[in-house]
Amino acid sequence: MPNHQKPDADADLNAAALAYHETPRPGKTAIEITKSAATQRDLSLAYTPGVAEPVRRIHANAEDAYRYTNRGNLVAVITDGTAVLGLGNVGALAGKPVMEGKAVLFKRFADIDVFDIEVDAETPEAFIETVARIAPTFGGINLEDLAAPHCFDVEQALIERLDIPVFHDDQHGTAIIIAAGLLNALEMQGKALADARMVVLGAGAAGIASIKLLIELGANPEKILTVDRKGVIHRGRTDLNRHKTEVAVETGRRTLADAFADANVFIGLSGPDLVSTEMLASMAPQPIVFALSNPVPEIRPEVALKVRDDLIMATGRSDYPNQVNNVLGFPFIFRGALDVRASRINMPMCIAAVHALKDLTKEPVPASVLEAYGLDALSRGPDYIIPKPLDPRLRDAVSSAVARAAVASGVARE
Amino acid sequence: MPNHQKPDADADLNAAALAYHETPRPGKTAIEITKSAATQRDLSLAYTPGVAEPVRRIHANAEDAYRYTNRGNLVAVITDGTAVLGLGNVGALAGKPVMEGKAVLFKRFADIDVFDIEVDAETPEAFIETVARIAPTFGGINLEDLAAPHCFDVEQALIERLDIPVFHDDQHGTAIIIAAGLLNALEMQGKALADARMVVLGAGAAGIASIKLLIELGANPEKILTVDRKGVIHRGRTDLNRHKTEVAVETGRRTLADAFADANVFIGLSGPDLVSTEMLASMAPQPIVFALSNPVPEIRPEVALKVRDDLIMATGRSDYPNQVNNVLGFPFIFRGALDVRASRINMPMCIAAVHALKDLTKEPVPASVLEAYGLDALSRGPDYIIPKPLDPRLRDAVSSAVARAAVASGVARE
Repeated sequence: MPNHQKPDADADLNAAALAYHETPRPGKTAIEITKSAATQRDLSLAYTPGVAEPVRRIHANAEDAYRYTNRGNLVAVITDGTAVLGLGNVGALAGKPVMEGKAVLFKRFADIDVFDIEVDAETPEAFIETVARIAPTFGGINLEDLAAPHCFDVEQALIERLDIPVFHDDQHGTAIIIAAGLLNALEMQGKALADARMVVLGAGAAGIASIKLLIELGANPEKILTVDRKGVIHRGRTDLNRHKTEVAVETGRRTLADAFADANVFIGLSGPDLVSTEMLASMAPQPIVFALSNPVPEIRPEVALKVRDDLIMATGRSDYPNQVNNVLGFPFIFRGALDVRASRINMPMCIAAVHALKDLTKEPVPASVLEAYGLDALSRGPDYIIPKPLDPRLRDAVSSAVARAAVASGVARE
Repeated sequence: MPNHQKPDADADLNAAALAYHETPRPGKTAIEITKSAATQRDLSLAYTPGVAEPVRRIHANAEDAYRYTNRGNLVAVITDGTAVLGLGNVGALAGKPVMEGKAVLFKRFADIDVFDIEVDAETPEAFIETVARIAPTFGGINLEDLAAPHCFDVEQALIERLDIPVFHDDQHGTAIIIAAGLLNALEMQGKALADARMVVLGAGAAGIASIKLLIELGANPEKILTVDRKGVIHRGRTDLNRHKTEVAVETGRRTLADAFADANVFIGLSGPDLVSTEMLASMAPQPIVFALSNPVPEIRPEVALKVRDDLIMATGRSDYPNQVNNVLGFPFIFRGALDVRASRINMPMCIAAVHALKDLTKEPVPASVLEAYGLDALSRGPDYIIPKPLDPRLRDAVSSAVARAAVASGVARE
């Protein structure tokens, strides 16, 4: 396994990334005309006078926008630039390459068209108003790289106001992939979710959402210790916002090291090298460690596996096994939601995605996937608890599960 | 020449337009990925971890957004749905087919990428805020189908707030094409612009903007009579908004018929069949009539030319000669502005577009244009005062003139 990235490798990657973004033309997406636009007749249908009739139809019946416009396959990837990658509040404009990158992934994996929208909003309320006002344009809204805690209220407000799916991927997308991998890992380690003692380091968007999803899936809230920069989030703390209060537990443990003792599961959504070999050594037998900080994990696999050979480990990186990568989720979750014109992405749909991802690892891996990753073989086990991003079966498996859950839970409109 | 559209022709067009919009997939535009996105390596450049470097660059220097994102070739076509085509205030969503159609035209004629954005804004102020907040996404903003009079203030406010071109096409785009055709027609009729007595019927976005542009080009403000639903806009009227007050003149004429007597030029931006043969007969010798109401002109060419054989006439329709069609302007005006990264589209740039359009009619027409229109020959004269929309020379001619004017007037940044 590789060491973590060296300065040389970083410089190479950065130079390649700049060249990729700049040439032969700046950016990563463009518009494609999907209808013939060659002749005067074509143009008279695409624009005036022909376009008047679709306008009249939609004016009479708003649902006709799904028949006559791009709305039904169009998702906005929207940010306010307050929490871009691990770089922090870089502002709306600097977030644009990430939003365009997300557009590439939506298109590449699920044939969903995405407009990246960067919002220069002075307050979360201004952001909410802006997104709500431009919502008629879109069939769904993927919120991206909003800082916690305002991301929670922003998403909730928009879900309540709009009748199209609104999904903050940094919360639920991440939570879904984590849950799928964790359920597999727990099965392999012989531990029931309800009995697992867990430590979650990082109480931001992904941490809070992961805890909530795991509880929905059967985890015991009292067995989950959440840790932020100030230590364990316990009921005695007086510095907690509403979202952290929801995950506070009654405990005497105070430090991250305290939290680790006898834990079955660690989920890191924090920063580089925050977990020591001593902490790892103190975990219960057959532990599970998701060290998801990027690019440098909370503890490096080559270090961790030296300390604990009974460990199952995942990271956020593509150069180790078990990459927790949101691209396993969001393209297909939206694909399923759009396919049945769901009015929202609800918990049953998220849980359906978890199980679809989890179950896919139990199927034989196609040769094309082995080839894409230069592997001779791959089967469910400690090094394969989550599907690989380039697995072409993901689209059908996840999106159809999500669509079925939308129908079953009554939010589908088609 | 054809009669004006019959119900059967309307029904055929409507059915064809609905089919065009619906099949094989709804809408007219989609997203295209412009970079390779096949391999894991590609994706590591398009998204994490590679994308972090362009983010850092743009965070350090906002201009780098033009190097590393789609911004520099991306225009928003934005409406609030208050004045869609001639259909009125149909709302933001129902305006979507028109905005998508405009995206088709921008791409088809000038290879400019367009996100159509439909804004459900409760007030003009809310619309302004919304557009300003999402502006970091775009290299330019084309406002579309906003009602007068709020369109004037909305555009002005956005021009002042933003450092990218903001252009209300229904105002300036229309004005530019009218001016180009009118200058040619005046030359042919042997009349100087400064001496021409003009009647403008319709004091909305296009009417007001046309008058202002013609005055910039040398028309005498006191010789332009503007007429709205209540008659001639004169200084004695007490019902005028600020924008109409600017075009009010000292005159004893009160009705449209009064205004027509001895006029050299009529510009109609109003409604069907509002001009009578008597009015036409009362015009000065060698008159010019731009009957631009769509689909039914203020007076039909076959009627008008029977009354006045010394007439030069234009309409908004493609089935008569001299179609005043905005597509002659906006794609190339934005192309020129984007090419030199202009911070705005100012009056010198608009005037440059007028002259480029006007002068193009003096050049020999390429065979491909004759073929596209099924014509044997076409040269400058009463039936050819404006270029044809499918003329491939427009792109270079207009956009380079606009770009040069941007540089000369100091608003280019590249």
